[in-house]
Amino acid sequence: MRFKLTLEYDGRAFLGWQRVIHGASVQGVLEDAVEQLTGVRAEVVGAGRTDSGVHAMAQVAHVDIDKTVSTDRVRDGLNALVRPHPVSVLSVKEAAPEFHARFDAVRRVYLYSILNRRAPAALARGLVWCVSRALDVDAMHAAAQRLIGHHDFTTFRDSHCQAKSPVKTLDRLDVSRDGETIRVWCEARSFLHRQVRSTVGTLVEVGLGKMSAQDVADALAAADRTRCGPVAPSDGLYLLRVDYAK
Amino acid sequence: MRFKLTLEYDGRAFLGWQRVIHGASVQGVLEDAVEQLTGVRAEVVGAGRTDSGVHAMAQVAHVDIDKTVSTDRVRDGLNALVRPHPVSVLSVKEAAPEFHARFDAVRRVYLYSILNRRAPAALARGLVWCVSRALDVDAMHAAAQRLIGHHDFTTFRDSHCQAKSPVKTLDRLDVSRDGETIRVWCEARSFLHRQVRSTVGTLVEVGLGKMSAQDVADALAAADRTRCGPVAPSDGLYLLRVDYAK
Repeated sequence: MRFKLTLEYDGRAFLGWQRVIHGASVQGVLEDAVEQLTGVRAEVVGAGRTDSGVHAMAQVAHVDIDKTVSTDRVRDGLNALVRPHPVSVLSVKEAAPEFHARFDAVRRVYLYSILNRRAPAALARGLVWCVSRALDVDAMHAAAQRLIGHHDFTTFRDSHCQAKSPVKTLDRLDVSRDGETIRVWCEARSFLHRQVRSTVGTLVEVGLGKMSAQDVADALAAADRTRCGPVAPSDGLYLLRVDYAK
Repeated sequence: MRFKLTLEYDGRAFLGWQRVIHGASVQGVLEDAVEQLTGVRAEVVGAGRTDSGVHAMAQVAHVDIDKTVSTDRVRDGLNALVRPHPVSVLSVKEAAPEFHARFDAVRRVYLYSILNRRAPAALARGLVWCVSRALDVDAMHAAAQRLIGHHDFTTFRDSHCQAKSPVKTLDRLDVSRDGETIRVWCEARSFLHRQVRSTVGTLVEVGLGKMSAQDVADALAAADRTRCGPVAPSDGLYLLRVDYAK
């Protein structure tokens, strides 16, 4: 039986989603838990291979478990076995045998959270990017709209990105303020490596008055990594949701 | 010059507000920072002596600094010096020489945050109490109203409480749900030791159907500590605000 898992995790405790030889990865911790639960090693395939330090509110993954076991038992069993790692299986559903968490995803939604105040973050430390200088959110949102659509996103792509093509379609990029918190909402079918953090870092340059909306549009058109602003830290980045066609 | 400080902190990193010989306290960390900033040791007096693990979104404290120094410099200087402890000086204001953070407070507001879902907390671990069984929030709120007013709160008082009298006036106790999050909002001029956590633990018994609103009223009237529900963990408790008359 193939199961679809929805997962929450605190990225600070992991070297990222992907299994690594040394150190804790979300995938590795889950695969160990599945093996303890079933006695069989199986790959846990995630929709997004989040980087070290990147959080998830609702990552989606699939895994095959041959035993006859209820979805509730998989959820509670895995949650008991992943302790003390800060990953939580929010829900488990039976999936079609051909369901693929990564290839079938039609939309990924990321949220980037900025705490814009003079005082450093205490309660939200590691969970936000604290920017001490006042940011112009309207300017950031206006500049963000210049990135919407089907483009070559080479400027916003990490040099280690393994995607075949730098061409992606960005469907939504909204910047809004709620008191001291600024949220950047990003939606696309898929993203390049560090695309969201590269984009947010560039938009913060706009918020600080160091770049204009036209500078951002020109940087995109140049398809030149050196035109990107500083990459935003992983602290504020959350994989918020993954959508499937069915 | 007397300064009024507004403070945010993550209670997990401290043995509580009050200075202790061994280990980190919020007060001790701040007093060390003040001494480094000014060269003079001075007491930092807090409005509420929060317990180990209890958080603050806006604790208030006062401290005397003899040097001529701007409020901005006190805030930024202390924030640089308290690192890496997760406490942040949100704001600094000049106060009257007779201002007393503890004795002048006319209202303290606490928030208790419960995550009510089957899956354990990952992102909010240590920042909420995760209760896996479904809670009846309406029943909790109704029972809470039986505690409003001027009463002997012995039932909801820790045996180590040093207050002279167990009689307090509880002004507001609201329980509300926002999705999986349940918030308990508590307001009073002052509270007994562990009164909020004792109250929340008892209200959760109501939410689970183990106690009725009448049971809570009877427990209060009995003025008997053994009639209290289990004390809620520190994880979900936040000192949210302290009000002053002027």
